[in-house]
Amino acid sequence: MSFDPETLTYDKAGLIPCIAQEVGTGEVLMMAWMNAASIRRTLETGRMTYWSRSRGAFWAKGETSGHVQTLVELRIDCDRDCLLAFVEQVGPACHTGRKSCFYTSVRDGAEVEVMAPMG
Amino acid sequence: MSFDPETLTYDKAGLIPCIAQEVGTGEVLMMAWMNAASIRRTLETGRMTYWSRSRGAFWAKGETSGHVQTLVELRIDCDRDCLLAFVEQVGPACHTGRKSCFYTSVRDGAEVEVMAPMG
Repeated sequence: MSFDPETLTYDKAGLIPCIAQEVGTGEVLMMAWMNAASIRRTLETGRMTYWSRSRGAFWAKGETSGHVQTLVELRIDCDRDCLLAFVEQVGPACHTGRKSCFYTSVRDGAEVEVMAPMG
Repeated sequence: MSFDPETLTYDKAGLIPCIAQEVGTGEVLMMAWMNAASIRRTLETGRMTYWSRSRGAFWAKGETSGHVQTLVELRIDCDRDCLLAFVEQVGPACHTGRKSCFYTSVRDGAEVEVMAPMG
């Protein structure tokens, strides 16, 4: 079956969440949003291109920082309302300089930072 | 800093996406939604408890199927608007009987099923 981004299920804003997971390490790097156009652009360019909700514009990951994500494989979930992208990540994925955005852990009822910014 | 679920950022429906990743394999199993009450219940019980948008009720994962998810560690992302749960999964996570909900891959412009239901 040929893939048509229009057949996915989007929220009222026309967006679908996309989880970026690093190939090799399996580390979950971040979650961001895509619309149909950014999915097409991601598949065409091979570079993860999200939709920035704050800017209302394409967000070609790493465009300014150089911390690009190359798409290795795109997966769709059973409900067709969430995407999982296997990616190769240059540098940190998080804008704080950390490898992953998920650097805060809940331990014994407290928040603990478990990841330092990359050197 | 003590963890208060109320300090997270929820959407207009009071929900936050939660990614479930299997400990050990690193496999991303599913993404589902939580509200503050289901986060509290998950932390208290040690069992992943989502919020079912279709039923408008708690969804204690595996309650009827037996395919429970035990919480190992909960992570919060930099924007505090997405959760990552490291879990131990009994049986398949997907309602289709597959280990993960992300069993459809986009390859050369086509959708391909890359995972069979568990035996």
